[in-house]
Parts: sequence; structure tokens; C-alpha cells
Amino acid sequence: MKLQVTQENLAKALGTVARVATGRATLPILSNVLLKTIDNRLSVAASNLDIAITHQIGSKIQKEGAITVPARLMQDFIASLPDGVLHLELKDNKLSITTDKYQSTINGISAEDFPIMPAIKGGSTWKILSAQLKKALQKVVFASSNDDARPVLTGVYFHVVGGEVTVVATDSYRLAEHKLGKSKSAVNFLVPGSAASDLLRIIGDFEDEVTITHDDQQVLFKVNDITLVARLIEGNYPDYRKLIPTKFATVTAMRREDFINITKVSSLFARESAGSITIKAEGKTVSINAIASQLGENTAEADATVKGSGEVTLNSRYLLEALNAYSGEQIEFCFNGKLEPCILRSSSDANYLHLIMPLRS
Amino acid sequence: MKLQVTQENLAKALGTVARVATGRATLPILSNVLLKTIDNRLSVAASNLDIAITHQIGSKIQKEGAITVPARLMQDFIASLPDGVLHLELKDNKLSITTDKYQSTINGISAEDFPIMPAIKGGSTWKILSAQLKKALQKVVFASSNDDARPVLTGVYFHVVGGEVTVVATDSYRLAEHKLGKSKSAVNFLVPGSAASDLLRIIGDFEDEVTITHDDQQVLFKVNDITLVARLIEGNYPDYRKLIPTKFATVTAMRREDFINITKVSSLFARESAGSITIKAEGKTVSINAIASQLGENTAEADATVKGSGEVTLNSRYLLEALNAYSGEQIEFCFNGKLEPCILRSSSDANYLHLIMPLRS
Repeated sequence: MKLQVTQENLAKALGTVARVATGRATLPILSNVLLKTIDNRLSVAASNLDIAITHQIGSKIQKEGAITVPARLMQDFIASLPDGVLHLELKDNKLSITTDKYQSTINGISAEDFPIMPAIKGGSTWKILSAQLKKALQKVVFASSNDDARPVLTGVYFHVVGGEVTVVATDSYRLAEHKLGKSKSAVNFLVPGSAASDLLRIIGDFEDEVTITHDDQQVLFKVNDITLVARLIEGNYPDYRKLIPTKFATVTAMRREDFINITKVSSLFARESAGSITIKAEGKTVSINAIASQLGENTAEADATVKGSGEVTLNSRYLLEALNAYSGEQIEFCFNGKLEPCILRSSSDANYLHLIMPLRS
Repeated sequence: MKLQVTQENLAKALGTVARVATGRATLPILSNVLLKTIDNRLSVAASNLDIAITHQIGSKIQKEGAITVPARLMQDFIASLPDGVLHLELKDNKLSITTDKYQSTINGISAEDFPIMPAIKGGSTWKILSAQLKKALQKVVFASSNDDARPVLTGVYFHVVGGEVTVVATDSYRLAEHKLGKSKSAVNFLVPGSAASDLLRIIGDFEDEVTITHDDQQVLFKVNDITLVARLIEGNYPDYRKLIPTKFATVTAMRREDFINITKVSSLFARESAGSITIKAEGKTVSINAIASQLGENTAEADATVKGSGEVTLNSRYLLEALNAYSGEQIEFCFNGKLEPCILRSSSDANYLHLIMPLRS
């Protein structure tokens, strides 16, 4: 392998892929990135067996070849070099990287040992604007679970509801759902939450289309020169739609910023009680009370429009994360007594729905 | 106690003092801040027995009094309230804080139990511009030691050298010294590094004079409405001045930015070898070589003016921290063989000197 690339392109590609290369004690080569010449371009790839990301960049190839090198060292090193052309040359699994002021040698591991994800055979394909996918995933991914005891809940579920592709995530304490628009494709797959987070990072900077292809085992997202392949989570996603209430005993509407402020202040007093805060709607105000037995207590209130009245106890962190996922100026908060799910909704985010289960108080 | 303060002033005072209130299992009240009315002002104070900081703010006092309340909760709570006037009132060791939208009660501990640092009796006093003291401390504090085995080296030493007040810190691997200007006072005291760091934070925003008073046991820094009192470190500071070489076999001069860049790049390859890098001066270049036995090696070079020639092995972190403490465009790096101290100097920072001991290579 012998080639030239610009520092800028190589640094960008390493930035895209290297985070996936975290390594496992049993397979050290997964701490490396794969550099491989393909059709007069340089392919830079990393994998953790569940997710693989590849970024192809322009390159002047003098001799074909492939090698894997330590991801963290390579990323930090290339990022710290000045702008300009880098000369890469492979000799006996040692990669030399040269500019006029820098000469370095990085010890590699043969590319033959690098695990390749199997190709997707057939499967269905659809396209979506990357900005639209990004907006939806940002409002949904954080509601997925980190608990591997129920793998299904660690994923983000893509499926069709009433003719519209819909993404949803839930950790069983709260649920976030966003519609992506009409589609004729048979979309139905469960992506690991970590892959969805990587995808968010990758599509961040592009205003282009994302092409999505999936079969029963894997999904492939392609945007410009970058592809992300993820192993799907197996299992049946819970039939969550029947949990979403449509009628409410209490409907409140207020400025979203006011609701955020009174929740934040109350959450300081709720640190000792696992974030437990009690929301009360009555007359023309919504108030939040939090009690820290050792430290004191706090009541904060905001002006609101209230239909009905009542109170409900929630986890303040879930409420804050939900409120921050909305973007409009006004927010509606609706609930039915102390035990049934609460929902947040906003006409500015008509495709988005967030549901939070109450705490027993 | 019953009074009114603005949210802005109280938040600022808590920001100044609360970091010191870290608490100790043996004396929980040290996790609290002391609020006390003094002469129609509110004094906000915190202490860890070694350092005490007090910030006095304007206040409309209706009834004198004092209480201590949990520092972290109080700081976070007041910071999260909107601008405006806060009403504080004490009833049975419970502090109520009220605005039109917020009512909270914070449980306090009686102010009588709060430990007060003894007053400084007599002692000598001098003044210095805060900007000048800040600049010097920023370039010196980081060279003090974190190792409590030699308490003297954890401090920043203020003393007089050739009629000039001088601050110095060393962890025995490197040493930083900055002159503060002529003084007739008998300055000679050793401040804990942590107190010097707190002082840096406090004097950050003021373009005023700092008044410094010390006796054998304590030093008091006063700037505007803030005072910091620190217990001095006992013991004799090493006679470091005889370590500073005045003649050099090799004197190099180069752009400081170039030296930083080649040190940074090399340090990536020196992670496995505790930061060990070898600097070589010859002809018209300074080059740095670093070897990571498992991962590879790197040589980086910069254009330089070189008198003499030679090489020396240093810790890359110490070199980077020293280079970043200078501000001028050019830097001189001077050394005598492989075992004697190296120094950095710059005509833009004529009052500053940084010395680094080589590693045995």
C-alpha cells in the first residue's frame, strides 16, 4: 500500500469511524481501524461486531493494499498534524506516515484478521431526508433503556403506524414516538440504541438523503461516503400503542420555558428522593412541590391554562428530558389521576409524542 | 434574621465561597455556608479549616441574625432562580426563601457551631495589582506538588529575591518562578497550592488591588468585598535558586507554537513510556523523537536557531505545560547535557523562569 491523502480528509474519516473501535479483550484487532484501498479511494473502517462504520475518502493511490492500525493513536496523531498532504506507505505491517516535518511509523495488524460484517442480501430499501431522520432520532433515542436485561427496550423501533413510518423508544418508565411520514415500504426493524446514537453523530453535518436497507438480520444506513451497518435486535417490540391515553381528566397548557424552570428548581430538592416531584394543577396555575426531608422543601409555580384539576408525582429527570425534546414555545401536559400515564404534546411538534409513567406517591 | 437581597448578588457570593465547603465526615457543618448579617450587609462564608472565604454583599436587613445552610443545595437553588429580589427569613433554624413564584424552606444548622478562623494579629501588609498577581500565580501554581508526603512542595512560596517579591512552586521535577516587583515588606510565607488556586478564581474578575496581610500562621488576601484566609504551610522551602543554571552548552530558539506542535504530536507516541520524549538540537532544527514499543515511533522537527548541539530526554507533559505558561511568540530552550536542569525563557515574559529536570534515558 502506498498512497497520498490530505490531512483534512483522513482526520475527518477517522473522526467518523474511530469511536466504534473500542476493542475487546478477546479480539484486540477491534481497537484498530482498517485502512484499505478501493477503486482509487481509501476506505477507513471500524467495527465492534454489532456496528460497523466505513468512510471512503479521495486518495491518490500508487499501490493497492490494506492494514489495520490502533484507532486511538491514529486518530489523535492525524488530528494533531498540520494541514497538507500525507504520504502513507506500508512495509511489513508497519505503516509509515510522512510529511516534510514529521516522520512516523505505526505498527499494524494484518487486515486479513479484521472481521467483516456480512453483506445485506435483498431486503427492502427506502430513503429519507437526513435532517428529518436526525430531528426524529434526537427526540426518541434518549428514551431507550440501558438495561441489557430486556434487550428489546435498548433499541429504537422503526415500524409503520397508519401508513406512516414511525420511530419509538421506551425504557418502560417513559416512551417517545416520532412519525417520519408516509411510506410504501414494509419497514419493521429494531436498531440498537447505540447504533442510533452513532447514526445521529454521522448524519449531523449533512443535508442529504439517507438510504436505509434492511433484511431480517441487519440494517444499513448510507449517507454520502459513509455507511453504517448494525446488527438488529431480535424479539417482539411491546404493543405500546394501546398504552397511550386519548382522553384526560386534567389538561394544562403553559409556556414550555416556565415549565422547565419550575421543574429544574424543584429537582434540586428532589435529589434525595430519586427525583420525585409532585405536580398540581388547579385554577390558573401549575405548581411543583419537592421535599428533601433532611434539607428542606420547595414549591414553585407557573401561570397556566388548566382544564380539570388534580395532581401526579413524576421523576423530575424524565420530565426535564421530555420538555427539552420539544421545541415550541407552548406545551401541553395532560394526565388522568395518580397512576395512569401522563403525556406531553405541542402543536409545534405535531409528529412527536412523549409519555411518562407516574411514580407511586 | 430577616432580609432582602437580589438573586444576582447572592448567586455571585455563593459562587465565590461554596467551592470551599466540601465537608468532612467528622464535621458536617463544613458542607454548609454561613449567612450572617454584619453592618447592614450580608456576609456569605465557607471554610474547610485550612481555607476560609467570605464575600459581603449589599442587603436590606430588617432583623439581624445568622444561620448555616447546605452549600451545594443553596448555590444550585439560588443560581436557578430568576432575577429579582429574594426574601430570606429565619424561623427555628429553618431558612425560608420566597419570591412571588417560589417558596422554599431550607433546613439549617446553628451558626454558633461554625468554626471561625482566628484573626491575624499584627503582621506585615502590602498591596499588589490583582491582574499582576493573577498573571504570576497562573504561571506558577501548576508546578506545585500534589504529594502530601512533602508538604512544603505542595505550596506556593512568596519571598524576596534581590529586593523583588517572588513567587515560586516546584514538585522537584520542574520549577516555576515569577517576580512580582520591588517591595520593602518582609515577605516570606508558604501558601497551600489549593488556596492559591482558590485565590486565582476569586481575583479573576477584578482589576483592583489585592491587600495581603500575613503573620507566622496565616495569610489574608482581600480584594473588594472578598477575603480569603489560609493557614500557612510550616517548614523551610528548599534553597532552589542554586539549582538554576546560568550557562548552557546548548541554546535553541524557535517559534513557541512550533515547539508546542511537535511536542504534542510526539506526546501521543509517549503515552506508553510515561511521557518520555527525546529532544535533539543540531544544525538548524530541533527534533523530538518518541518511541512506543508496541505501537510505533515518531520524529517531528521544527526550524530553530541552535548554538551548540546535544540531546536531552524530558517528560512531554511537563514541557507542554511549561510552553503553554509562556505567552510570547518566540521561546528559548537551553540545556547542559543529559542530566542537568533545562530551562525555558522568553523576552516577552522576562519575569518568568521555568526549569525542567531531565528523565534518565
